[in-house]
Amino acid sequence: MADDEFTIIDRYFSAIGWQSDHVALGPGDDCAVLRVPDGFELCVSTDTLVSGVHFPKDCSGDMVARRSFAAAVSDLAAMGASPYSFTGALTLPGIDHGWLSKFSEELSRLSVDFEIPLVGGNLSRGPLTLTFTVMGLVPSGQALKRSGANVGEDVYVTGYPGDAGAGLLLLEEAEGRFPSLLDAYQSPQPRIEVGEQLRLIASAVIDVSDGLLADLRHLTDSSEVGAKVDVNRIPVSAEMLLFASPDEALSLALTAGDDYELCFSANTSSRGQIEKLAVSTSVLITRIGSIVKTPGIALSGEGAGALDIESTGYQHF
Amino acid sequence: MADDEFTIIDRYFSAIGWQSDHVALGPGDDCAVLRVPDGFELCVSTDTLVSGVHFPKDCSGDMVARRSFAAAVSDLAAMGASPYSFTGALTLPGIDHGWLSKFSEELSRLSVDFEIPLVGGNLSRGPLTLTFTVMGLVPSGQALKRSGANVGEDVYVTGYPGDAGAGLLLLEEAEGRFPSLLDAYQSPQPRIEVGEQLRLIASAVIDVSDGLLADLRHLTDSSEVGAKVDVNRIPVSAEMLLFASPDEALSLALTAGDDYELCFSANTSSRGQIEKLAVSTSVLITRIGSIVKTPGIALSGEGAGALDIESTGYQHF
Repeated sequence: MADDEFTIIDRYFSAIGWQSDHVALGPGDDCAVLRVPDGFELCVSTDTLVSGVHFPKDCSGDMVARRSFAAAVSDLAAMGASPYSFTGALTLPGIDHGWLSKFSEELSRLSVDFEIPLVGGNLSRGPLTLTFTVMGLVPSGQALKRSGANVGEDVYVTGYPGDAGAGLLLLEEAEGRFPSLLDAYQSPQPRIEVGEQLRLIASAVIDVSDGLLADLRHLTDSSEVGAKVDVNRIPVSAEMLLFASPDEALSLALTAGDDYELCFSANTSSRGQIEKLAVSTSVLITRIGSIVKTPGIALSGEGAGALDIESTGYQHF
Repeated sequence: MADDEFTIIDRYFSAIGWQSDHVALGPGDDCAVLRVPDGFELCVSTDTLVSGVHFPKDCSGDMVARRSFAAAVSDLAAMGASPYSFTGALTLPGIDHGWLSKFSEELSRLSVDFEIPLVGGNLSRGPLTLTFTVMGLVPSGQALKRSGANVGEDVYVTGYPGDAGAGLLLLEEAEGRFPSLLDAYQSPQPRIEVGEQLRLIASAVIDVSDGLLADLRHLTDSSEVGAKVDVNRIPVSAEMLLFASPDEALSLALTAGDDYELCFSANTSSRGQIEKLAVSTSVLITRIGSIVKTPGIALSGEGAGALDIESTGYQHF
């Protein structure tokens, strides 16, 4: 009975990370009890990652923690929400203490880094699967939806989309030469601070999980507009230029998922503010196109015609 | 591409059940956005059910929906919380439209019955697993914890614990003679109304998911007390008396899980109120023992000595 559910939870998950005043009752009862301050709304999102589908089988515990956490917390960033609390449901085929140690240590570190307390969880036996439900707070009425983009606005993306996709290829080939590409896949950085700062600037925001074109398409469809993207404006990292040909780099940037960067629209009058935001958060923010009336995504710029843009993102089924 | 994630979500999950004024933004964006009324706290719980572990393989979609929903919502009942919203993360090995139809229809019905909107979700490919995260509201400070029991108080249980355990045995034997026992397993009833009414009556509450003795032990351990249970007071249903010998019936009642009844402690001065509550909610509520100083659960009454009480509940690992 040494490895029953309660022993494992006590050993690996009872002292995880960040503590917060808004937690009236933490894990260990039938529910956690949380205080929501007046004047704020609650943002909620659920994400599941399945071994062999969303991350390679035999993935280390710390990498599973990082990628799952980033996928979930990135949805808060995309609403402009500040991290508030999260729950984790972990299904494991058996008890691997080495794996669990790495997983829980990394989760604890992330919880502290993002100041988000783990308020509940579930541990089950079964195929390796992890579901995080994240909660965030936004001042009432300020949540950044996908549906607010207007014709004539600029389109931006943070970071270097495609780097994580290249990292996944490198990982599959056990190729360690491009550390920043590998890092983009293994340790994606949810853009919480950028999201918070965009609350009163952006008109619509989405995070890039399925691929830049696919996710921008979700944004424009929700907003009942289209977008024109200048492929020559897509940012390409130094390592990506060494790793791939210009065409391959562009294809990865437009269609590979897993980056958890933010893509957003904003009025052209906000260009100055957004430049300052890039400086104050030390996050690259690049203007890549504009919102247009015609639905769908049109590509412009040199090389755009040669691209196969049918493969617009990860298909879940 | 007809069966991609977005098509499936649109077809089966976009119009599920209950709509609520507190949902500022429903499913379809990166997060749902929810309003929490002033003066309330938020209760949150996550539960995962795995095919072949928590329910039989080849379980129908409607039964998976019912049992998973009950397991999750029952945690709200155990806090005295009123249903507020929930998210669902479904991992499926492939698309079975018959199964999905039954699952989503049943989930929609439950959402309406319990007045709880589905505000978000996730659909992945992988082994059949379902994680619900439920949120409920309680007036600030009134959440019913496990830790409030005091020496001298009464111990109660709702319904007929053990009936669901008997139903599972019947299901495994494809035996259809005992409809109310089968129903107890297939359609457990979270005791939301009883939980809400207990807010100002009970001192500690837990729901019975692992077995009556195991869960009462969680309650007494949290409260740093013990309990004495009179086995002759344990309620036994009419069908259970036909299905099992008295000893078998008692063993199921004390140790089988899956009932999602409530077990709680209350001051002896509340007996009249609790009798009225049983009448007003039409739920059987039985006084089965009392809180004592000595840690652990002691059994009294005829036949108590012969019971094997080592097997106190479902072990998750």
